[in-house]
Amino acid sequence: MTVRALALDAYGTLFDVHSVVEAINAQFPDKGPALSEIWRVKQLEYTWLVTLMERYESMWSLTRASLVYAMKRLRLPPDEAVIDGLMQAYLNLQPYPEVIEALRTLRGHHRAIFSNGNPEMLRPLVHNGGLAPVLDDIISVEPVQVFKPSQRAYRYAEQQLGVPAEQVLFVSSNGFDVAGAKTFGFQVAWIQRGSGQLEELGVTPDHTVGSLSEVVELLA
Amino acid sequence: MTVRALALDAYGTLFDVHSVVEAINAQFPDKGPALSEIWRVKQLEYTWLVTLMERYESMWSLTRASLVYAMKRLRLPPDEAVIDGLMQAYLNLQPYPEVIEALRTLRGHHRAIFSNGNPEMLRPLVHNGGLAPVLDDIISVEPVQVFKPSQRAYRYAEQQLGVPAEQVLFVSSNGFDVAGAKTFGFQVAWIQRGSGQLEELGVTPDHTVGSLSEVVELLA
Repeated sequence: MTVRALALDAYGTLFDVHSVVEAINAQFPDKGPALSEIWRVKQLEYTWLVTLMERYESMWSLTRASLVYAMKRLRLPPDEAVIDGLMQAYLNLQPYPEVIEALRTLRGHHRAIFSNGNPEMLRPLVHNGGLAPVLDDIISVEPVQVFKPSQRAYRYAEQQLGVPAEQVLFVSSNGFDVAGAKTFGFQVAWIQRGSGQLEELGVTPDHTVGSLSEVVELLA
Repeated sequence: MTVRALALDAYGTLFDVHSVVEAINAQFPDKGPALSEIWRVKQLEYTWLVTLMERYESMWSLTRASLVYAMKRLRLPPDEAVIDGLMQAYLNLQPYPEVIEALRTLRGHHRAIFSNGNPEMLRPLVHNGGLAPVLDDIISVEPVQVFKPSQRAYRYAEQQLGVPAEQVLFVSSNGFDVAGAKTFGFQVAWIQRGSGQLEELGVTPDHTVGSLSEVVELLA
């Protein structure tokens, strides 16, 4: 396979969205796992719902809204200062352990993040996680005002990369994103993280790997 | 308020989607609540994902796919005969207890179901639940090949009803549907069933009620 550009999903793929658990536990002992889980599910749902309703809001705004939803669901008081604190934790998500070294090894390939996040949240995330020196580009869906798996989002990424879809290797741990990218026409590597499960949507990735290090092997 | 037509969501609003718990428990003791919950969440997600990917499949097909996903998640063997049996349970969902009497009382209003379900699943559901004599119409999104909350779905319902959006009272227990219908321009009554929670999407319904009987009171 010819791969002329790498498009890497950020949330859940390069960065562990559940690394907010510690910050939540500091505020609400033992609530970290449950709150983090609802927060993430709802965050994704909100990206899909606003796209369908043709009412784009930034992922930052939707991440905050989904946190409020999750707190209410667990009957935690939605205190503004607490919310602000947890949102800061979202700018400091931990990269998965192999990510920096794997990206460093991939130099020579065009290494682009392609994410639902808006630039104002992606830039500090990448900086705080120490990924800035090992990335060549950050592509956000924000200019097209739709979220993945809208096909318009992948088309925009293809245009930004300047490479035909079939020569792009898209990497994600998220099942919906694998389905969306493969439907669009990218080559797709699915990183199966934790108990990750593919969606039953009739789409299979070209490659299934356990970490970004295995993507390095694919391209070697 | 002038109300010239009623558009009623089906799944979760008139019919209890979690009435499949008993059928699940008969196959997998004690798994009913967990499987039913994942099944429903995933079913809705799949309607949104295929709409965003521009790959319509019927809700019947997606209900089956989401059941397979849920069974795999809980490490239950996805046996075809078991799946077929549980899908039959989906054609026999229980109406909420007040629904038939409330709809009967609403005669004289145009009473239409407006649902993501395809006609092949809605017709037996309505028949088996005993709702056929108390409904005037069944509107499925199927002809427009998108699911709620796509604004095209609500527009299609408006056209089928032949009444301007602002003279339609839309009734749903589903937060995403409340947001979608209100964004479109319907009058909206939210039935808060169980621990139901509105979405944090900046949209509030015109009315919040505890059951369909209270919708009768609104219109009296």
